[in-house]
Amino acid sequence: MKSRAAVAFAPGKPLEIVEIDVAPPKKGEVLIKVTHTGVCHTDAFTLSGDDPEGVFPVVLGHEGAGVVVEVGEGVTSVKPGDHVIPLYTAECGECLMPDGTTRFSYNGQPLYHYMGCSTFSEYTVVAEVSLAKINPEANHEHVCLLGCGVTTGIGAVHNTAKVQPGRASGEAGRIIAIDTNPKKFDLARRFGATDCINPNDYDKPIKDVLLDINKWGIDHTFECIGNVNVMRAALESAHRGWGQSVIIGVAGAGQEISTRPFQLVTGRVWKGSAFGGVKGRSQLPGMVEDAMKGDIDLEPFVTHTMSLDEINDAFDLMHEGKSIRTVIRY
Amino acid sequence: MKSRAAVAFAPGKPLEIVEIDVAPPKKGEVLIKVTHTGVCHTDAFTLSGDDPEGVFPVVLGHEGAGVVVEVGEGVTSVKPGDHVIPLYTAECGECLMPDGTTRFSYNGQPLYHYMGCSTFSEYTVVAEVSLAKINPEANHEHVCLLGCGVTTGIGAVHNTAKVQPGRASGEAGRIIAIDTNPKKFDLARRFGATDCINPNDYDKPIKDVLLDINKWGIDHTFECIGNVNVMRAALESAHRGWGQSVIIGVAGAGQEISTRPFQLVTGRVWKGSAFGGVKGRSQLPGMVEDAMKGDIDLEPFVTHTMSLDEINDAFDLMHEGKSIRTVIRY
Repeated sequence: MKSRAAVAFAPGKPLEIVEIDVAPPKKGEVLIKVTHTGVCHTDAFTLSGDDPEGVFPVVLGHEGAGVVVEVGEGVTSVKPGDHVIPLYTAECGECLMPDGTTRFSYNGQPLYHYMGCSTFSEYTVVAEVSLAKINPEANHEHVCLLGCGVTTGIGAVHNTAKVQPGRASGEAGRIIAIDTNPKKFDLARRFGATDCINPNDYDKPIKDVLLDINKWGIDHTFECIGNVNVMRAALESAHRGWGQSVIIGVAGAGQEISTRPFQLVTGRVWKGSAFGGVKGRSQLPGMVEDAMKGDIDLEPFVTHTMSLDEINDAFDLMHEGKSIRTVIRY
Repeated sequence: MKSRAAVAFAPGKPLEIVEIDVAPPKKGEVLIKVTHTGVCHTDAFTLSGDDPEGVFPVVLGHEGAGVVVEVGEGVTSVKPGDHVIPLYTAECGECLMPDGTTRFSYNGQPLYHYMGCSTFSEYTVVAEVSLAKINPEANHEHVCLLGCGVTTGIGAVHNTAKVQPGRASGEAGRIIAIDTNPKKFDLARRFGATDCINPNDYDKPIKDVLLDINKWGIDHTFECIGNVNVMRAALESAHRGWGQSVIIGVAGAGQEISTRPFQLVTGRVWKGSAFGGVKGRSQLPGMVEDAMKGDIDLEPFVTHTMSLDEINDAFDLMHEGKSIRTVIRY
């Protein structure tokens, strides 16, 4: 079938909105009509060419919501009409379907899938095992964000770091948001940040700014931007004796983190988080329910909505620091 | 008072056995007659000059047992005649007593303390808070090893890594000892190693040898020699999704560990362990009891005993890989 899609034909170039061909789902696969997709930094990262796993031409997009159109042989957990969120895994491997082929083509030329999702196509084929079936009453414009960004943040705090209220340091309840873009601070405060710090306001490294707050460090630190120098600063700002630092961001190809082993021997723990440690098929439907009840507040994250034709504007807004999330409506 | 001591006057030189002066204990300090001291790689490391915290001249030694001779003002937890193990902390700071001075001198020249212990002197002064009071029936020739090496190993497994029997991978109960010195393998097997691997027997990196055993990695890995390349291999050999790698060894001055952050984002945890996470004053007396009951078997570790005059031979045996531990008897 034909599908409108935003195709990344080459790294560093704008996406091109074209009509592609989508092959029917094979055994264990499901054809989805994507209704909404977020535009995430990870899409921009792969588009930039810095992603060591990136391949082109490709249909990007991995933070979507949609409705099942057709199921392949043997698919039992979803049926046409079901509402779903596609799930990426930590590593997409070959950027192909489980049988090693692709369901996308343009003018007869194969296009790669992306992270098992490829939500930048109105119609996409994903593996049955990569689908979370959700409440059909959910607002896709919001819950698509549970396909990546919001789930990653919530999960990194609750599953990976296991942050507990009232921890030993006496600093519990203090949540420090750090960004070089102060326009994000109002939203950070709305979500509970007690302190907002712009590293550019200081003439010393952010690590030293944090150690001025507590000379032994911060109970939990999170790196969310994929900068290996910030990852090091986050570890070395973590509390001596028990501090944990969690890497969430995706670093560029070949980049490495470093520190003196003394940082670990004195009790800090360095770990990472992919999709917040959330098991998508079993846990994401419950998170959708939480969002519908208002326990997870998604609306403030959606600062812009636009059509697929405008998707390159969504990337521009993100790079300019003007959006939190732009959601594409098909 | 006078005390025989093995003094490190300069990095890279043999210790000199001389008679030094030991000042009386001040407030909160305790004078100990050391009966036995182990000779540890950490002593050799500091003696080599590679230790960023190393200062000279210094009385090394930190794995001892002894008897209280005299207590300073305000000391209440130990009295003359009590049997004790001196405790080092992860970082000795200034290598001086809590008041910033030293109790050691030689020909009027001050000598530094080492790790708050300085057990290479027959008489040493340590802070009250750095003493574990132990059962007076304990065999000092054995339990001095609880002052460092054996406690570090036991604690790294039980406190830091929290190794559980029967873990997920199905490889539980398999304990792989890795050493380039195959003479240590018999003892490793005696202590439970099921596999002994000499990296020199393979023409590929040890990481790849381990991933041949389990392609997803090993549940828990421990680096015990202070080599930053081995620390990296240990992390990258840890099991994807949940593997933990613990750094125990002390790296050289300025050396750093590195890895791709992907190693952490895919679920590995990097941590360190100092003195096995054991709280010396409260937990070490119980470990001495365990050793007396035979639950901790210390005797096989003591491969050599000798007098203080022979202490440089102990360093030679260690460097040649011929000893596990040499214990000095005063």
